[in-house]
Amino acid sequence: MALVKLIEYEDASPEVRAVYDDIMTSRKVDWINNFWKALASDPATLKRTWESVKEVMAPGALDPLTKEMIYLAVSVSNGCGYCIASHTAAARKAGMTDAMFGEVMAVTGMANETNRLANGYRVPIDPAFDR
Amino acid sequence: MALVKLIEYEDASPEVRAVYDDIMTSRKVDWINNFWKALASDPATLKRTWESVKEVMAPGALDPLTKEMIYLAVSVSNGCGYCIASHTAAARKAGMTDAMFGEVMAVTGMANETNRLANGYRVPIDPAFDR
Amino acid sequence: MALVKLIEYEDASPEVRAVYDDIMTSRKVDWINNFWKALASDPATLKRTWESVKEVMAPGALDPLTKEMIYLAVSVSNGCGYCIASHTAAARKAGMTDAMFGEVMAVTGMANETNRLANGYRVPIDPAFDR
Amino acid sequence: MALVKLIEYEDASPEVRAVYDDIMTSRKVDWINNFWKALASDPATLKRTWESVKEVMAPGALDPLTKEMIYLAVSVSNGCGYCIASHTAAARKAGMTDAMFGEVMAVTGMANETNRLANGYRVPIDPAFDR
Amino acid sequence: MALVKLIEYEDASPEVRAVYDDIMTSRKVDWINNFWKALASDPATLKRTWESVKEVMAPGALDPLTKEMIYLAVSVSNGCGYCIASHTAAARKAGMTDAMFGEVMAVTGMANETNRLANGYRVPIDPAFDR
Amino acid sequence: MALVKLIEYEDASPEVRAVYDDIMTSRKVDWINNFWKALASDPATLKRTWESVKEVMAPGALDPLTKEMIYLAVSVSNGCGYCIASHTAAARKAGMTDAMFGEVMAVTGMANETNRLANGYRVPIDPAFDR
Repeated sequence: MALVKLIEYEDASPEVRAVYDDIMTSRKVDWINNFWKALASDPATLKRTWESVKEVMAPGALDPLTKEMIYLAVSVSNGCGYCIASHTAAARKAGMTDAMFGEVMAVTGMANETNRLANGYRVPIDPAFDR
Repeated sequence: MALVKLIEYEDASPEVRAVYDDIMTSRKVDWINNFWKALASDPATLKRTWESVKEVMAPGALDPLTKEMIYLAVSVSNGCGYCIASHTAAARKAGMTDAMFGEVMAVTGMANETNRLANGYRVPIDPAFDR
Repeated sequence: MALVKLIEYEDASPEVRAVYDDIMTSRKVDWINNFWKALASDPATLKRTWESVKEVMAPGALDPLTKEMIYLAVSVSNGCGYCIASHTAAARKAGMTDAMFGEVMAVTGMANETNRLANGYRVPIDPAFDR
Repeated sequence: MALVKLIEYEDASPEVRAVYDDIMTSRKVDWINNFWKALASDPATLKRTWESVKEVMAPGALDPLTKEMIYLAVSVSNGCGYCIASHTAAARKAGMTDAMFGEVMAVTGMANETNRLANGYRVPIDPAFDR
Repeated sequence: MALVKLIEYEDASPEVRAVYDDIMTSRKVDWINNFWKALASDPATLKRTWESVKEVMAPGALDPLTKEMIYLAVSVSNGCGYCIASHTAAARKAGMTDAMFGEVMAVTGMANETNRLANGYRVPIDPAFDR
Repeated sequence: MALVKLIEYEDASPEVRAVYDDIMTSRKVDWINNFWKALASDPATLKRTWESVKEVMAPGALDPLTKEMIYLAVSVSNGCGYCIASHTAAARKAGMTDAMFGEVMAVTGMANETNRLANGYRVPIDPAFDR
């Protein structure tokens, strides 16, 4: 179980409801997932985290699908079960196919392997890479 | 310094040279970076790792640039200095602009933050995500 | 389920009971939590770990509450579910309020984000910090 | 070397200068450390990160010294060299003594050890902790 | 639940069945564990990963038991629940006793502690180690 | 540079010298490596850490070489540069050949890859492994 009470919309303060409303409007959904209901126990963290996520994940030089797949890859690498489940769902909603999911997993796995080979052999950075 | 001797092309055995040749041909480059020169101290690992990387990073459901940015994000998350330098170079070569680089960093940073918030609050996975 | 049999007080050897007794006396509790019951399958590790934890967590230049919050922050950062649950309980017992819990989470999340930004940009250490 | 050009005050755009000014005013310092000069290559990330750090690290239920020591402990646990150097300096400025530094390290080390023992034995969470 | 459908032998394509057959023959078992049934949703990753694992875990300069204990130690350090369970089983099958299991855990815990002490104190590498 | 002054034998207090003497006697060496010279700034941590390492690394159900290779694998996985350098040296002294080193790296790399694949696919633990 969560370490804090999950705060439902009907029990939320006006400032928490304002964030919930913005989440639902921005994402075009009609429910709030547990992550935000947990953060709502600390309204300052809820607001700051939502505004940062909203800004970072907005379309920019990268499209939302690419951003969601990067988010997923990092979450897989860190082993965050909640984040893997929620960002797989978000990436699929943004257009990730089964084949893309498989390739995100494959790249994430391979990067974790070669990261350790580079660490373990203490490979010096090539001058061409160290500008 | 590296924990093994870096093996230059002119000092390499035929089986190592065959891998070096395939790396240079596949990547359209005329030099070998230190990662492979270190792995060459264990030819079986060199060959297996190169063939796996080549297969995983080939164009598929995801294009090479997207794959390189995912590789970079994982390497940043794991703090592998060599891999950050080499995959930033590879991603730039595949078309990553300064703005894209900034967004990869921003998404990676944000994912690391919310991964810990989800861990710390022990947020239960929503039934909608747990198919 | 645990990978070893959890050893209850009544089934414990005299050397394990001695550690259990010291845990209960030192912590002013009348039960043993599962972590120690698992370690009891390896009495040398049980004894060494308990004595180290007891020494490290004793009041010193830092008070026990501060130490418990640092322990919690590291456990959250590492994603250890058991440790998050047990050290949240320990920190609350030592005086951590809901507001303090929220701030520990916020600082832990932010540190994880900026750790990756510093890694990713390969920021050189300022001479003023590198004494 | 950094993967981006570090932006000095005199070369900064008005929006970057505004952040630099706020950092110097808030922290009562007359220089900008490299972390912010690197982020300045992406002004949106610079502004968002600074505002988040400023909010999170402000005195609240926890005092600034406690927050800096938690930040340091997480940075040590993650192995971020830049962050260890900069947050040790920040914690010392906020009052961390040599003895406190030693205890932060000791708690961080011990937490990392027991996090793995709990993982490795797959210790089930006690009902008393799983509220 | 898994994020993909687990593919049973009777529902598998010929190429997946060929890998399953090789796993069962190589390991002298008559069933396939869930890891491979999940990877089977991406046959290229299934085949590449199995062939790599088979090659890496074959007897060589190190015997299979030592390799399994190293695999277990890394999995414990990374907190991968599935991998801890499956590689503890594999190591036990290869001859790991209860006492050996306890020592693998103890070494893994201690390494995680001293890794952070070395990070935290920013200990410079001794010339004698930096060949 | 280290964050604390490295304490040389000639400048050490009697309690620190006693630990240094025990390290040199136990390891049959005539010098102290920087890790211990850094910990000496906190004599309680120096003594506790040395005694724990000495106990954990002593021959038991596992021989010293196997223990050193596990220590190395964990240090590589965590990316601790100092620990990789010092435990590679220790493992070589205990008998690790070049071929063994290559296999430790290969197993460590592979474990890191499959740990993430298991995380990413959220593979459920097989009943046979979950005793």
